[in-house]
Amino acid sequence: MSTQPSKTLQTFPNPAPERDYHIHMQVPEFTCLCPLTGQPDFARIVLDIIPDKKCVELKSLKLYMWSYRNEGAFHEKVTNTILDDLVKALSPRFARVTAQWYVRGGIYTNVVVEHHKRGWKPKPRVDLGQFDPAQPAAMGG
Amino acid sequence: MSTQPSKTLQTFPNPAPERDYHIHMQVPEFTCLCPLTGQPDFARIVLDIIPDKKCVELKSLKLYMWSYRNEGAFHEKVTNTILDDLVKALSPRFARVTAQWYVRGGIYTNVVVEHHKRGWKPKPRVDLGQFDPAQPAAMGG
Amino acid sequence: MSTQPSKTLQTFPNPAPERDYHIHMQVPEFTCLCPLTGQPDFARIVLDIIPDKKCVELKSLKLYMWSYRNEGAFHEKVTNTILDDLVKALSPRFARVTAQWYVRGGIYTNVVVEHHKRGWKPKPRVDLGQFDPAQPAAMGG
Amino acid sequence: MSTQPSKTLQTFPNPAPERDYHIHMQVPEFTCLCPLTGQPDFARIVLDIIPDKKCVELKSLKLYMWSYRNEGAFHEKVTNTILDDLVKALSPRFARVTAQWYVRGGIYTNVVVEHHKRGWKPKPRVDLGQFDPAQPAAMGG
Amino acid sequence: MSTQPSKTLQTFPNPAPERDYHIHMQVPEFTCLCPLTGQPDFARIVLDIIPDKKCVELKSLKLYMWSYRNEGAFHEKVTNTILDDLVKALSPRFARVTAQWYVRGGIYTNVVVEHHKRGWKPKPRVDLGQFDPAQPAAMGG
Amino acid sequence: MSTQPSKTLQTFPNPAPERDYHIHMQVPEFTCLCPLTGQPDFARIVLDIIPDKKCVELKSLKLYMWSYRNEGAFHEKVTNTILDDLVKALSPRFARVTAQWYVRGGIYTNVVVEHHKRGWKPKPRVDLGQFDPAQPAAMGG
Amino acid sequence: MSTQPSKTLQTFPNPAPERDYHIHMQVPEFTCLCPLTGQPDFARIVLDIIPDKKCVELKSLKLYMWSYRNEGAFHEKVTNTILDDLVKALSPRFARVTAQWYVRGGIYTNVVVEHHKRGWKPKPRVDLGQFDPAQPAAMGG
Amino acid sequence: MSTQPSKTLQTFPNPAPERDYHIHMQVPEFTCLCPLTGQPDFARIVLDIIPDKKCVELKSLKLYMWSYRNEGAFHEKVTNTILDDLVKALSPRFARVTAQWYVRGGIYTNVVVEHHKRGWKPKPRVDLGQFDPAQPAAMGG
Amino acid sequence: MSTQPSKTLQTFPNPAPERDYHIHMQVPEFTCLCPLTGQPDFARIVLDIIPDKKCVELKSLKLYMWSYRNEGAFHEKVTNTILDDLVKALSPRFARVTAQWYVRGGIYTNVVVEHHKRGWKPKPRVDLGQFDPAQPAAMGG
Amino acid sequence: MSTQPSKTLQTFPNPAPERDYHIHMQVPEFTCLCPLTGQPDFARIVLDIIPDKKCVELKSLKLYMWSYRNEGAFHEKVTNTILDDLVKALSPRFARVTAQWYVRGGIYTNVVVEHHKRGWKPKPRVDLGQFDPAQPAAMGG
Ligand SMILES: [Ca+2]
Ligand SMILES: [Ca+2]
Ligand SMILES: [Ca+2]
Ligand SMILES: [Ca+2]
Ligand SMILES: [Ca+2]
Ligand SMILES: [Ca+2]
Ligand SMILES: [Ca+2]
Ligand SMILES: [Ca+2]
Ligand SMILES: [Ca+2]
Ligand SMILES: [Ca+2]
Ligand SMILES: [Ca+2]
Ligand SMILES: [Ca+2]
Ligand SMILES: [Ca+2]
Ligand SMILES: [Ca+2]
Ligand SMILES: [Ca+2]
Ligand SMILES: [Ca+2]
Repeated sequence: MSTQPSKTLQTFPNPAPERDYHIHMQVPEFTCLCPLTGQPDFARIVLDIIPDKKCVELKSLKLYMWSYRNEGAFHEKVTNTILDDLVKALSPRFARVTAQWYVRGGIYTNVVVEHHKRGWKPKPRVDLGQFDPAQPAAMGG
Repeated sequence: MSTQPSKTLQTFPNPAPERDYHIHMQVPEFTCLCPLTGQPDFARIVLDIIPDKKCVELKSLKLYMWSYRNEGAFHEKVTNTILDDLVKALSPRFARVTAQWYVRGGIYTNVVVEHHKRGWKPKPRVDLGQFDPAQPAAMGG
Repeated sequence: MSTQPSKTLQTFPNPAPERDYHIHMQVPEFTCLCPLTGQPDFARIVLDIIPDKKCVELKSLKLYMWSYRNEGAFHEKVTNTILDDLVKALSPRFARVTAQWYVRGGIYTNVVVEHHKRGWKPKPRVDLGQFDPAQPAAMGG
Repeated sequence: MSTQPSKTLQTFPNPAPERDYHIHMQVPEFTCLCPLTGQPDFARIVLDIIPDKKCVELKSLKLYMWSYRNEGAFHEKVTNTILDDLVKALSPRFARVTAQWYVRGGIYTNVVVEHHKRGWKPKPRVDLGQFDPAQPAAMGG
Repeated sequence: MSTQPSKTLQTFPNPAPERDYHIHMQVPEFTCLCPLTGQPDFARIVLDIIPDKKCVELKSLKLYMWSYRNEGAFHEKVTNTILDDLVKALSPRFARVTAQWYVRGGIYTNVVVEHHKRGWKPKPRVDLGQFDPAQPAAMGG
Repeated sequence: MSTQPSKTLQTFPNPAPERDYHIHMQVPEFTCLCPLTGQPDFARIVLDIIPDKKCVELKSLKLYMWSYRNEGAFHEKVTNTILDDLVKALSPRFARVTAQWYVRGGIYTNVVVEHHKRGWKPKPRVDLGQFDPAQPAAMGG
Repeated sequence: MSTQPSKTLQTFPNPAPERDYHIHMQVPEFTCLCPLTGQPDFARIVLDIIPDKKCVELKSLKLYMWSYRNEGAFHEKVTNTILDDLVKALSPRFARVTAQWYVRGGIYTNVVVEHHKRGWKPKPRVDLGQFDPAQPAAMGG
Repeated sequence: MSTQPSKTLQTFPNPAPERDYHIHMQVPEFTCLCPLTGQPDFARIVLDIIPDKKCVELKSLKLYMWSYRNEGAFHEKVTNTILDDLVKALSPRFARVTAQWYVRGGIYTNVVVEHHKRGWKPKPRVDLGQFDPAQPAAMGG
Repeated sequence: MSTQPSKTLQTFPNPAPERDYHIHMQVPEFTCLCPLTGQPDFARIVLDIIPDKKCVELKSLKLYMWSYRNEGAFHEKVTNTILDDLVKALSPRFARVTAQWYVRGGIYTNVVVEHHKRGWKPKPRVDLGQFDPAQPAAMGG
Repeated sequence: MSTQPSKTLQTFPNPAPERDYHIHMQVPEFTCLCPLTGQPDFARIVLDIIPDKKCVELKSLKLYMWSYRNEGAFHEKVTNTILDDLVKALSPRFARVTAQWYVRGGIYTNVVVEHHKRGWKPKPRVDLGQFDPAQPAAMGG
């Protein structure tokens, strides 16, 4: 695999397709251009995926994110496009893209977009107490 | 578009009307006047919108927030009015306005107001574990 | 309105009675007396109200909280009494009082009491991703 | 009441038995002994109680927690026993004990145990936005 | 029990099998090898277990985690394998494994995998207000 | 004293002029206008004062801060001017003004300006360990 | 010792007068009255003491703080008075009183007052790296 | 001034050259390229300046930071170059550049570079207690 | 070495006696008894040591801390005694004991005690910017 | 350069040897073995370097840290050895190694070791106010 920005999201077979399970990825290094002014925009991109037959390969995901570096893209549009591309490459049971854009005009904008595979239903969550990361007494609620 | 305070919320076409998705905006720079004493009030305004056919244009939102600078407005009333104006301009599927007022008389007041489009139903949320922003080991619960 | 402690909670007409909306108030300045020993107790009082025809007036709420300064009051009892007084004054659709008592005997006690207006049903919450206050990339989950 | 460790949880009549309400207590000062090695263990104990006819008296709760100081107790067992003792003393509508044990062998263990009174059903929670403690603009989500 | 890495998860009888209760464990000391490059990977492993007849013994859990130190393991695969091994050893009513991998290529990956015993249903959670760890006024929401 | 914005900083006699002591004030509610565009700017203003013969009166300070609401003011200039006005009104032994401006153009600007009375020398600080606010075990370093 | 508010600070002999050492105390439960309006004021009082021949007795300190409950007191004056009373009772080598007043008029005021025993000199601080409270890897700087 | 990336740092006359004062700026939106691989690097750039005759103009600073977007630059080199360019443009009394680079190879690198004008000496700092941002009781140490 | 509480602090030879270096230890598990009432007290003990010829052995330190479990001890006295015992066992160049006692009577007490070896002088600290633990952009000041 | 653990720290020429400047690196991924039991130990390693003629190359630093994975090493010894190796490879003007070891026996140990080049003197630090990372109003003290 070359080390160039690329729109191709490579995949590998899901090692546990018999289960619904959750992959959460955070990409704090994302930048594109404002389509009106050409000035840089920055965001943190967060992915939540319940895979079906395929998982996204980490390095190609990095190159995919890099591919936006010189593209103009509206906040709402680019978030939807990332989701569309993930869905096309992975056909996941579930995918959510959260784009957390850096402040513009004193306003902080975040966009959250989801895909549900047709016919797929989430199992109801087993709702447990939450605990903060390990401390002398891990904090729960 | 001029750079004057304005009550007009400008819009652009929703680039992904086929989906319910979530736009979250934070406006930490809001000030109006107390209608009784004329003294300044301050708040942080938070918007949560699921758009239908239109999205709110960022710069006009900034000018709209500015338009309250010299207006007298009760906490409960102004929060409802911002929601009404958003609904009128956007006809969104869902909108929530959270106004977090600075302390007065030792009491901290927050007001949360929602609009649901008639006949629109939220899809049940896919309830996943939550993760804090990226750290050496991102913290989940 | 005088500036004396007072048990009277004054009200004003709800400016948006056509909607269920949420008023959240925090009162970090609350003190009363231990009914057994006469020694001071301290608490932070938090109110969550969905108003019906009336809203509570801020200054009278402050004077009401002051009225406990020289009264003996058990933790569980005073929390219930504040709720009772709010319900009597406002007939709200919903009210919750959370009293967070300062530590006694090495134990931290909190009491949470609610009132639901007869026949009133909360609309199911539109459950969105949560975002922390505005930062370079506002943090979501 | 003497000031000796004691297994007796004293009670007083619930001042508001007509309502389901929530008492949350945190006990950061808990220590017992490892039943295998005799070495000290430490935990933070958190109680969540919806009382029925009785509430637990604060000082006796402190003496009760003290009573474990020289007892050997496995993590899972002692958490269940505290719940059993609370249920026996209070017959509460609901009780939850969360024991947050200090790290052993590099692993942080927490145990959460609940009791539901037979036939008692929790009212569905009125799910409101959450707000952090009072700050210039109290933070909501 | 020796002090060598081991794939054997030892157990002891659940002291309270009559109840569903929750054991939450955090293992911040986990390392394995990248199966492609042989370089070290690090993660924090979090376990949430509702036991049935058996509980996992703490020291053997530590040795089990150590057993990955010289093994190559893909992120998604190792998380599923840890769950499989726990299920085989414990036959728990419920188990969730959360693996929080350290950053690679600027991307933070977390994997969350669950097992539900056939026929087991979680009791609906009693949803109470949450409180942060004990402070002068413990913070609630 | 009227309740109008005012450039007059009122004072009262320092009740302990025999000592150097430190008054720290935070003003999170400050807004002025950009002198180039006329658009609103926001800042948090922090004052650190070692008084000499006079202290600043709290209400007049609030009205003074209000007086900038309709004035154009560059970041560096307004911070220096606030210091000049404090020095003129109080002739303090020491004064520091910290202005923390809200983000503009993706850049966060803070300005810190100090005045030392001629001939005044700070006593060397007694440098003690620092402790965080009270918690079960207040945290020190 | 009775359990009434009292201006008397009781003392006990310093168990280690041969050393300079530091006693840091936090009193989050302090309230007095505004001398102008009679309304309640609240503060957190922090004490830093290097004792000489005497230490302050904890219970009498609590009763002393209680003694302000019904007294009118300006922010700057009461902070200086607490220091004067500590100095009179203890003749310490060093004492610092920090009073952190709750917000009034949107402004947060803190007052820090110190006493140095005549002829006493602090030893220069051994300036070590600072560490945050214990966590999996305690955080240093 | 155009809106293109530019190496020119524009300036304006220091409005208070008679004083040493401190301008602190944070630039969370910085990206350049790795000179070896051509892949994107990200950093947060922090500036601390004590101006002499000139201050840096905010918009030109933003365009200057943008100018690195397509340049290859080693971590240590680019931090030194930013300082050199600031010194050339401003001839400040003091300047510090802190570059906080995003993680590479599991390692977090930060570079801190300073310039002192020849013959300029910092005034000894008046070392006061520090206070956290305004809260009900602003926290000091 | 047995596994019983013990007053003996075992040591091993300092592996780098040619340097002054800093060992910082946190002991969140400490409990003793109140000498007046016999009730349990709890503290977090923090040690800062610059060793000379000897270092303290970790397991014996744990057993030493355990030895206070059934002893009555005043806050100021026990902190001084721990320091005395460390000095006797280690003859360190420098030692600091910080005892952070859990709240009693609403007051949080911390005691900080130091020993300097006769004739030893700390090297002046190289005072660098501080950085928080690794995050996408490690935070500096 | 191969991708194997290695004791060789590679270097490159300092691009700005004319200045003292500060390189701060955090290595959260460090593990070695306990020399007594052979069990894994974990630490976060923090480096603070003022380079002279050479800087440490990032990839070789990663391989160097990896080289401890199968070595037994006492806490105090390994920290000193890392410093020795850095000094041998870089001959820096200043170097500090901070090793933050994960908890053992309930005790958190950190070791801080420094090297000063003979004849090198740190320039006195220009002590400025500190500011937290960028927020709506970046927080200063
Ligand atoms: Ca929690
Ligand atoms: Ca969070
Ligand atoms: Ca979380
Ligand atoms: Ca969040
Ligand atoms: Ca919170
Ligand atoms: Ca929140
Ligand atoms: Ca929490
Ligand atoms: Ca909470
Ligand atoms: Ca702190
Ligand atoms: Ca601290
Ligand atoms: Ca630190
Ligand atoms: Ca801070
Ligand atoms: Ca502080
Ligand atoms: Ca810190
Ligand atoms: Ca910092
Ligand atoms: Ca700060």
